[in-house]
Amino acid sequence: MLAISGKLIHRLTLYHGILTYTLCGQEYVSSNEIATLLKIDDSQVRKDIALCGVQGLPKHGYKVLALKKSIEQKLSFNKQKDIFVIGAGHLATALTQYADFKAYGINILALFDNYESKIGQMINGKRVFDINRLENLIGRMKIDTVILALPPQNAQEVTNRLVKSGIKFIWNFTPCIIEVPDEVVVCYENIVSGFLQLIL
Amino acid sequence: MLAISGKLIHRLTLYHGILTYTLCGQEYVSSNEIATLLKIDDSQVRKDIALCGVQGLPKHGYKVLALKKSIEQKLSFNKQKDIFVIGAGHLATALTQYADFKAYGINILALFDNYESKIGQMINGKRVFDINRLENLIGRMKIDTVILALPPQNAQEVTNRLVKSGIKFIWNFTPCIIEVPDEVVVCYENIVSGFLQLIL
Repeated sequence: MLAISGKLIHRLTLYHGILTYTLCGQEYVSSNEIATLLKIDDSQVRKDIALCGVQGLPKHGYKVLALKKSIEQKLSFNKQKDIFVIGAGHLATALTQYADFKAYGINILALFDNYESKIGQMINGKRVFDINRLENLIGRMKIDTVILALPPQNAQEVTNRLVKSGIKFIWNFTPCIIEVPDEVVVCYENIVSGFLQLIL
Repeated sequence: MLAISGKLIHRLTLYHGILTYTLCGQEYVSSNEIATLLKIDDSQVRKDIALCGVQGLPKHGYKVLALKKSIEQKLSFNKQKDIFVIGAGHLATALTQYADFKAYGINILALFDNYESKIGQMINGKRVFDINRLENLIGRMKIDTVILALPPQNAQEVTNRLVKSGIKFIWNFTPCIIEVPDEVVVCYENIVSGFLQLIL
């Protein structure tokens, strides 16, 4: 399933961020500019960019827009992925409002919650549905991927319902480890482990 | 600075999650139980646990509470780290309410924002201060670490102020690459790269 390594994906998304935000408006970029911003090795940047099939021009470097597009193709940002968000609290709201999801091909269709006060609300243009409608809407809209952003105590019970409904990919933002059958893939978004690498 | 690898830190935080949530109340756990939950190799789990200095008992496995405590020591959860959160939007709020930060030794003291409606509010018992008071409070409270969770367009300007005030570690949740001097460490919390590894 995984054609390119996690570390390469991580670096390419950082390069993409540089091209989108930091160097926006600039025509050319050198591997050295990117390497300096990220404090990594210049040769690493050149190697990664070569893997995207982009060639630089002597003395100019890479065309910003062309390089950005190649990274988007390499990481399949152009293939749109429809997903549901389970939960409608602050984290779910922050993710639904996350500006870059759309650019990365991640298309949030709807959110689900069991709080009456949240059901029917709109978050960044997406509706919050009653969690009781989960199975029905997964089937009707042919969804296979969800973001799990609900309280830990409900994580396993809701996961069981998701699996029964045919969900294949779970992007888990709760701190819980969830039990799923072999054919279901869970991505643990452990936000603390990145920070521990920073301070340890 | 980094005594243990990022991958080991990631696995240990997942084991810690299992011991805290999934197996809470159980006296013993086997490496095989953990390996099965995470769909990784049993020998990997045994190796990681040995690095924490914990020995299992034949036929019983590891004591849940002792193993949990050893992981906490290995990852320095017992050393409390005081931090500020820059921003008070949904993501900042979600992080401030994140149940596990305290268990991981991460102690959020205050948040900062420039919206009048947010200043003075309490989020999970932490006050939102006017961003104009940032430099003053960093100095007075001797803070060297912040979470950056504000809109991309303000990221670099606020980073410059943080660096001038003596901040050494920036945990960056914005999609921007920020420029900092060599002595400042930035951890890029690129939430999308984890997901791309799942679906690519």
